[in-house]
Amino acid sequence: SLIYEVIVRKSSFLEMEFPKLIDLMDDTVPGIGTYEDFNTIDWVREKSKDRDRHREITNKSKHSTVALLFSISDAFSGWLLMLLIGLMSGALAGGIDIAAHWMTDLKEGVCLNGFWFNHEHCCWASNETTFQERDKCPQWKSWAELMDGVSEVGSEYYTCNHFIIMLCWALLFAFLAVILVRAFAPYACGSGIPEIKTILSGFIIRGYLGKWTLIIKTITLVLAVSSGLSLGKEGPLVHVACCCANILCHFFTKYRRNEAKRREVLSAASAVGVSVAFGAPIGGVLFSLEEVSYYFPLKTLWRSFFAALVAAFTLRYINPFGNSRLVLFYVEFHTPWHLLELIPFVLLGIFGGLWGAFFIHANIAWCRLRKNTRLGHYPVIEVLVVTLLTALLAFPNEYTRMSSSELISELFNDCGLLDSSKLCDYTGNSGSTSGSVNATAANGLGARLAGPKLYTAMWQLALALAFKMFITVATFGMKVPSGLFIPSMAVGAIAGRLLGVGMEQLAVHNHERDIFRGWCSPGADCITPGLYAMVGAAACLGGVTRMTVSLVVIMFELTGGLEYIVPLMAAAMTSKWVADALSRESIYEAHIRLNGYPFLEAKEEFRHKTLATDVMRPRRSDPPLSVLTQSGMTVEEVERLISDTTYSGFPVVISQLSQRLVGFVLRRDLFISLENARRHQDGVVSVSAVLFTECESPASPGAPPAVKLRSILDLSPFTVTVHTSMEIVVDIFRKLGLRQCLVIQNGRLLGIITKKDILKHMAQMANRDPESILFN
Amino acid sequence: SLIYEVIVRKSSFLEMEFPKLIDLMDDTVPGIGTYEDFNTIDWVREKSKDRDRHREITNKSKHSTVALLFSISDAFSGWLLMLLIGLMSGALAGGIDIAAHWMTDLKEGVCLNGFWFNHEHCCWASNETTFQERDKCPQWKSWAELMDGVSEVGSEYYTCNHFIIMLCWALLFAFLAVILVRAFAPYACGSGIPEIKTILSGFIIRGYLGKWTLIIKTITLVLAVSSGLSLGKEGPLVHVACCCANILCHFFTKYRRNEAKRREVLSAASAVGVSVAFGAPIGGVLFSLEEVSYYFPLKTLWRSFFAALVAAFTLRYINPFGNSRLVLFYVEFHTPWHLLELIPFVLLGIFGGLWGAFFIHANIAWCRLRKNTRLGHYPVIEVLVVTLLTALLAFPNEYTRMSSSELISELFNDCGLLDSSKLCDYTGNSGSTSGSVNATAANGLGARLAGPKLYTAMWQLALALAFKMFITVATFGMKVPSGLFIPSMAVGAIAGRLLGVGMEQLAVHNHERDIFRGWCSPGADCITPGLYAMVGAAACLGGVTRMTVSLVVIMFELTGGLEYIVPLMAAAMTSKWVADALSRESIYEAHIRLNGYPFLEAKEEFRHKTLATDVMRPRRSDPPLSVLTQSGMTVEEVERLISDTTYSGFPVVISQLSQRLVGFVLRRDLFISLENARRHQDGVVSVSAVLFTECESPASPGAPPAVKLRSILDLSPFTVTVHTSMEIVVDIFRKLGLRQCLVIQNGRLLGIITKKDILKHMAQMANRDPESILFN
Repeated sequence: SLIYEVIVRKSSFLEMEFPKLIDLMDDTVPGIGTYEDFNTIDWVREKSKDRDRHREITNKSKHSTVALLFSISDAFSGWLLMLLIGLMSGALAGGIDIAAHWMTDLKEGVCLNGFWFNHEHCCWASNETTFQERDKCPQWKSWAELMDGVSEVGSEYYTCNHFIIMLCWALLFAFLAVILVRAFAPYACGSGIPEIKTILSGFIIRGYLGKWTLIIKTITLVLAVSSGLSLGKEGPLVHVACCCANILCHFFTKYRRNEAKRREVLSAASAVGVSVAFGAPIGGVLFSLEEVSYYFPLKTLWRSFFAALVAAFTLRYINPFGNSRLVLFYVEFHTPWHLLELIPFVLLGIFGGLWGAFFIHANIAWCRLRKNTRLGHYPVIEVLVVTLLTALLAFPNEYTRMSSSELISELFNDCGLLDSSKLCDYTGNSGSTSGSVNATAANGLGARLAGPKLYTAMWQLALALAFKMFITVATFGMKVPSGLFIPSMAVGAIAGRLLGVGMEQLAVHNHERDIFRGWCSPGADCITPGLYAMVGAAACLGGVTRMTVSLVVIMFELTGGLEYIVPLMAAAMTSKWVADALSRESIYEAHIRLNGYPFLEAKEEFRHKTLATDVMRPRRSDPPLSVLTQSGMTVEEVERLISDTTYSGFPVVISQLSQRLVGFVLRRDLFISLENARRHQDGVVSVSAVLFTECESPASPGAPPAVKLRSILDLSPFTVTVHTSMEIVVDIFRKLGLRQCLVIQNGRLLGIITKKDILKHMAQMANRDPESILFN
Repeated sequence: SLIYEVIVRKSSFLEMEFPKLIDLMDDTVPGIGTYEDFNTIDWVREKSKDRDRHREITNKSKHSTVALLFSISDAFSGWLLMLLIGLMSGALAGGIDIAAHWMTDLKEGVCLNGFWFNHEHCCWASNETTFQERDKCPQWKSWAELMDGVSEVGSEYYTCNHFIIMLCWALLFAFLAVILVRAFAPYACGSGIPEIKTILSGFIIRGYLGKWTLIIKTITLVLAVSSGLSLGKEGPLVHVACCCANILCHFFTKYRRNEAKRREVLSAASAVGVSVAFGAPIGGVLFSLEEVSYYFPLKTLWRSFFAALVAAFTLRYINPFGNSRLVLFYVEFHTPWHLLELIPFVLLGIFGGLWGAFFIHANIAWCRLRKNTRLGHYPVIEVLVVTLLTALLAFPNEYTRMSSSELISELFNDCGLLDSSKLCDYTGNSGSTSGSVNATAANGLGARLAGPKLYTAMWQLALALAFKMFITVATFGMKVPSGLFIPSMAVGAIAGRLLGVGMEQLAVHNHERDIFRGWCSPGADCITPGLYAMVGAAACLGGVTRMTVSLVVIMFELTGGLEYIVPLMAAAMTSKWVADALSRESIYEAHIRLNGYPFLEAKEEFRHKTLATDVMRPRRSDPPLSVLTQSGMTVEEVERLISDTTYSGFPVVISQLSQRLVGFVLRRDLFISLENARRHQDGVVSVSAVLFTECESPASPGAPPAVKLRSILDLSPFTVTVHTSMEIVVDIFRKLGLRQCLVIQNGRLLGIITKKDILKHMAQMANRDPESILFN
């Protein structure tokens, strides 16, 4: 249908400028060399095509000035494209931030000065507010106040009204989000990272990165975030950036026509996505390298970095948070950590690993239930019920009522002296209500003894932890855009802060013991609970996504201090080990497997001692391999072979008897060429010979003209011997990006191995259902 | 000889603990599966070996507790190794820093409190010094003072004496360095990075990373740096870290026995080297990934990062600079840069590119001259002459007299208000001697008008620039350890500072023009000349080494401000483009080519349209390929084939007539197996049959027993067809790390392509001498 159509068919501006050059490079028969939907690309062919193209341009550039200019513009088009992706993604991310902020506030109330102001801007613009109470100003009216001017703010009746209005807004937003996704772009749901990983590994999903997906995902992401569901916008931003990249690719012939080159650009775009999500360009590049990309040449590394920087600076220029900070959570710690603190950090790592493994297991079980039962038929109702549940459970607790990113910000925060937050209620603090002065306070350490508000906050946080853990499992995978970076980090940050405050109180109460001696000095903090929150967030995110270097670098870019890398690294390492010990897959890989995508994981090594002969088709009991002979077949015979079988390609041999391999021809190319010959070549009938040979054998007089198909024959198919161990075959498939490989023994063709065969074999070896691999 | 012996032959502690397990994994015939010196390894075979080993350990671990423990210790040995490498390299780097500092000061004078104090520590320990004059204290006596107590410090006679003594020390240090290198470890000279790149790509140079190289390189590096030559210790630190890694590998069976696994560790070690050189762990990892490594799986990324961090923190613990800073040049800038400043930054990029291209060209020409003429026979004299020249030319100019890293530090430095350096002599400064107050000063901008001392400093810097540019060309490549990071950065920093001060004066003098309006505000700096120095340093380093991301990240880690990444990136990009337009190779690649190492560059794409048939041996005019048949050959015939040819391996075919391929056997394995059979197998004589078949053909009665060699036959050799384009072949060689590949047509074996053939072909295509590739 129209909506799923991705390819922008209008000509690019390059084509308009240099029409002749482009024409010369067109393929002779349209359609040859393209792929069908839900199929795997052949990286070797794509890269060859690009090299041919490059060679042609270089050769031409020596002859004319126009061609030279074209060659230069072609060389710089990659950089231009990166610049555009950076600008567009940065602008979109800024827009999403601003819109989500405004709509979250819209749930509460409206600004009388203009409905387009959010709460903060509304009160900022009014001069009647002081710094202390910058959240309260007469211009900002909550809906409950507006509707019922009588009851006082804070009264039970008011609160009830307020909650009901907020709930209605939340349900409306969630409803709109799910309806828009269902109606216009089903691909816009979820985080998108599993599919992007699959696409980058060489799979075709038409429309997944199209303009409708982009528009709908952008809008529904804002709606979903504003509705208060337990989801983040960081993962979907990667999808948004990739959509931008894919759309922009269509304006550059080099990238529009070549699936391999386009994937290089998409790799860079996923770096851009993380860069704008966290304000961490280096972390973004490493995320793309480590987590998302499949083929990542060094040229792409440099370009990704450029694009990520452009995007980060565009976002800063837009300044959506109003603090001209690049990063999402800006933290500054002052107290150094003690070596013994590595023990709680490692504990947090263990917690993160356990949470990661639990989350993946529970979420996949839930998604499978949704997929296989009638539950999956009512996505709208599901979303509404979860929204309702989230709102009901979140409202009573102030730490769940605030948005997850605000919560994380508050938990990361180090308590300053003037901090009035409940988390900073220490008895020695000026803002404290408790007046108790005891012996400890006398020697200057009372400043870090917990006050009663802090104990309340701890209870609330513990409840928030339990709530977040369960609601996130149900939320991720619904038919709305949803990322899990922020929910995972929130879980970890809560756990970390709880442990941090616990450790702090332990140290304060036992400051004269040997272990804690030297931790607390009068007038300074003993330990930093905010650092624990940060370490916990990293551990939980690591447990879910199994990121390592990129995770640590993203967190490093948040704090900027090399000193805190060691705790982060200890937690990330422990978390990964614990989670890997429980289940090997990250949440993204688990979702890839759930959906049956043909994804060949590059990280996990194939460890079984099987040989190519065990995997190749045909199996021993099957009929022999369907092959074409290089001469001696008629058009009719070939057409019958095409219609009788469903294979994607056929080997061409010298003769059925010798089975000596000549080459390989793709079903799609063969089909198109025969159609084309029947239609356009004079005298081609069913008994015309099909020739794959180079020199035409003298046809018997009177015979119909032969169809010569050597041009579509791949004369250099990849071959392995039957004795080749599967670990080497898997390695070849991964590193060269093959689609299929022929198996020979002593020069005779015996069988064929496709990527799907390999994935099925791997599933079988891991005691999983081989039929779970759905696509070619 | 003893010195070059690398392999530590004593058993590792793992072997002592688990002797039985190790024994079971030994090869049957010693020597099979090892490589000769100056040969290329077969990555596929090495990786298969490791997977077999891993599979065996995993299988065993299910049966006994000891085996399970062994399996766990095996899994964690990689991390333990990384920890040890980090600790050892960090400690060595700290030692080198301290020793070089001390010996540089030793040239000048001695501390009376104890000769082991350097100048700073000596005066630090004495209480009689003030902060202003912390370089002057009675305990520190220059040699000239000690020898001739009469003449006053600062008099002409004293200066002359002082210079002669320093020169003698410099010559002594240089002499010792070159003599030690020549006598004990010739491999210790140079920066080592070209060779490490080659080794990582799968080449064997025995002794290059051995313990003698480590010891001698460490000592001579200190001597060379102290002698005042224009060289840095940053590149050689990579070599030192790799030596540490290689030596530590010998204590772990997993890494000692496997060339591929060991190279993973070496990749991590090169990250460690850069990490300790600049205090930039993330930059180090990216340097290893981008510049040095060949095979860099994600597992290695994570481990490299760990090792780099451990090393950085070890170095900080040692605290060689006495300022508890991790980084070599700590910089803090306060003034933001203006968009228009990108023009001078790009100019610096162009300068860096030009300098890089010039340096590579000149240095290679000089090294070639040294190699091909009698000049190369007198390395000691060469070093002494260059040291003499450096000392003579450097002494009169204060900016060349100080060490390059001090110079860079000073150039990077932003002028504070109390700065007494000549570079900060602005007329408005308190330290200024010039009393002229003019109209500009009156409106508050006089603070940035250059004073007379600054003009003198500019002249001196310009002279220093010319001197550094030429002397570095002559220095790099001499028979002493020498890195070029610091000299290149010094050239760039000087150029940058000159341009920076120029721009600043331009802006100050024209502050009322439209362009510069808003640049200068009263009381603040207009622009930061230190930033220009930094950008210039990055540009020049980029021009010479062609680093991109790693360069920017290293520089980012020095400043810590994301804001200054854009100027650095602009300069690095321009520099790379300009330098690449002039010559494609980085200095390391140029040296690899000069030495004829078989290095297949992964970055540069092969762009020619040749086919496998054009490259394979035998050529059309040559005699046919030497092959073995799988049966029917005698021991004598095989031995004659081995002695008549020099090929590293032979294909095995079914029969000479059919030329259908069975497998491939390596010359070394074949030779060892036949020797072994002759010696240990009863009844093997010259007419014994050599069988590569699986099932023994019934031997005629009375015939001598056959030598069965199927076990050494590689049954899955890589094959391509004659029609395969060379770009695909090159890609396969690069990505899979092949050593050779067989060429077949329609099932018949036609020829063979080795890595050397490919490199020769590439040299030919680039119009270079194909015979420049020296090794297999």
